[in-house]
Amino acid sequence: MRTNESSIKIDYRVEIENTIEAFFVSNIQRSNTIHPHYKTLWTTLHQLISSGGKRIRPLMTLMAYEAFGGSDTAAILPIAAAQELLHLSMLIHDDIIDRDHVRYGVDNISGSYIKLYSSLVPDEEDRLHYAQSSALLAGDLLISGSYDLITQASVIPQKIIAAQQLLAESIFEVAGGELLDTESAFRYADEIKAETIAYYKTASYTFIGPLLTGTILAGASQDDQRTIRQFAENLGIAYQFTDDIIGIFGDEQKTGKSNTSDIREGKRTFMIEQFYSCASPEQKEQFERYFAMKNITPYQAERIRKLLVLSGARKKTEDAIEFHSMNARLALKRLTITEKHYEALNNLVATVTKREY
Amino acid sequence: MRTNESSIKIDYRVEIENTIEAFFVSNIQRSNTIHPHYKTLWTTLHQLISSGGKRIRPLMTLMAYEAFGGSDTAAILPIAAAQELLHLSMLIHDDIIDRDHVRYGVDNISGSYIKLYSSLVPDEEDRLHYAQSSALLAGDLLISGSYDLITQASVIPQKIIAAQQLLAESIFEVAGGELLDTESAFRYADEIKAETIAYYKTASYTFIGPLLTGTILAGASQDDQRTIRQFAENLGIAYQFTDDIIGIFGDEQKTGKSNTSDIREGKRTFMIEQFYSCASPEQKEQFERYFAMKNITPYQAERIRKLLVLSGARKKTEDAIEFHSMNARLALKRLTITEKHYEALNNLVATVTKREY
Repeated sequence: MRTNESSIKIDYRVEIENTIEAFFVSNIQRSNTIHPHYKTLWTTLHQLISSGGKRIRPLMTLMAYEAFGGSDTAAILPIAAAQELLHLSMLIHDDIIDRDHVRYGVDNISGSYIKLYSSLVPDEEDRLHYAQSSALLAGDLLISGSYDLITQASVIPQKIIAAQQLLAESIFEVAGGELLDTESAFRYADEIKAETIAYYKTASYTFIGPLLTGTILAGASQDDQRTIRQFAENLGIAYQFTDDIIGIFGDEQKTGKSNTSDIREGKRTFMIEQFYSCASPEQKEQFERYFAMKNITPYQAERIRKLLVLSGARKKTEDAIEFHSMNARLALKRLTITEKHYEALNNLVATVTKREY
Repeated sequence: MRTNESSIKIDYRVEIENTIEAFFVSNIQRSNTIHPHYKTLWTTLHQLISSGGKRIRPLMTLMAYEAFGGSDTAAILPIAAAQELLHLSMLIHDDIIDRDHVRYGVDNISGSYIKLYSSLVPDEEDRLHYAQSSALLAGDLLISGSYDLITQASVIPQKIIAAQQLLAESIFEVAGGELLDTESAFRYADEIKAETIAYYKTASYTFIGPLLTGTILAGASQDDQRTIRQFAENLGIAYQFTDDIIGIFGDEQKTGKSNTSDIREGKRTFMIEQFYSCASPEQKEQFERYFAMKNITPYQAERIRKLLVLSGARKKTEDAIEFHSMNARLALKRLTITEKHYEALNNLVATVTKREY
């Protein structure tokens, strides 16, 4: 580890926000030259991204970039911000797949368009379809927008292309993860491992992509690239498994998320896989009585939670989180970076796994 | 015009096909390392692109490139082929919006997945939704894939970025056009001009993007770029208006397309706009009796056709096609290119507007 450098800046939230803001202001203007209705779509997108998102992906890109000696952070801000655009595009398309109309506690694109079209399209089913069509196009625009924003970085063209190839890799993997996740609702659980889905749907574009992009832009060695990838993979899996626990055991008041919808939908997470590998026949029988039941009662949901605890499935999931967290921390220790960057990256592990639930 | 050069090759269909083929073979292999179910999605995409498409966009990119003196055609094949990937991505998402399950006379992505999921998802509505979710992801992959394929071109990085920025422009415009087209089904026709939709939904990514990309890659002058843009804009509008006539007056045996569905859906084309500006009150009254009627009879559809002829709307549309074709030809005449390239580009005008119907 290098010596501590107290002048190191870690938090670039304002700069990231400004980069995202400039992207939307420019596209809102351009869309208006085509048609005011097109401007409405871009304005809706702008409102959505302004309503939430912790910009963790751009922050990680910048963190890794500086940790490996990258010296012109301002130049790569568009590449960092592109990670957030990709994220939002995936959320928007994921919401279509999940038939959700709320995101960040506000209307998502289809939610906004359902209201916008309320007086224009009387038929409810048609209205929903048109609203989802707008969301489909909005997501397309942000996939393309993330590539386009990368081209605006003030770095040599070779680095722009390198960042795009990493983005392409992320999209290739997250689309695969999303497909497997969707299909896991009706294909046998043993055909698709929950850890495979966690890796491709979450770890890949949320952690590996952003961190590796910063690392490569800084010109880090192949060894360091491999190590940061190990860090990111383990961090990503720990993140997803924590999310799975929150989805069932979370305090709705604290997390702002339903702790019953995963049970109601019968979501096949790692914890559920563990349950099936370690529960007794009686426990399984009880479990299947309520799991994936559309009109489950609070009492029945509580019964499911008990079974996950009693069978040891929750404990096994917590152990897996601990295992991946430790692997992530061990990877970090192999890096030669400043103490401040080490701490910033190390704190990510805690942030990701110790989320209050 | 330069002198004729008999050795010039115009038709690169085989090379384009090989480039597309290599892209899919590589992605099918990669997807299989994630999961066989993901491979299925890529195989389905591969089958779809192998079932149709005239590769007109890649051919135009190469045509323009060579017309302006580009000398390493093999090097830009990935950029040309990317135009076809973008096209397919737009078709796939357009089919979701139009709720179509057939493309190129075969099952499209959702059509294939409806069959694939038939034994897995008993509920018909759910099955359709999951099939469309797969199509959504497939389209996303090809948007990203088109950017990614461009990075494989053997040209200087600056040219790769230039080609990507043109791609971004195409996507920005076609998404706008698609939104306006979708909304024209329920927003007042006078809010959204059919020519605006034709420009953004068709001319932009089908003609302007591919031709301008080849032109710029060849290093053509600003003047030539402006001229080729004029050519492409006019060609694109002529193409779309011809398509609109085919959609209503086409011989289904010759075109392979329904000549009633546009009438049944009440599609607001340029020809319909012309009808409303030139028909008599009696003609309008008759027209509105049958236009956009879900269960229209062949006799009633024929009545609509008669009204479009009698009102002069069809003639006005043909005049507009002639006007834009002439503008396209005039633009071409201002270029200093070989006779063979001139002929190839000039033939596009005839190909686009004289399609048998």
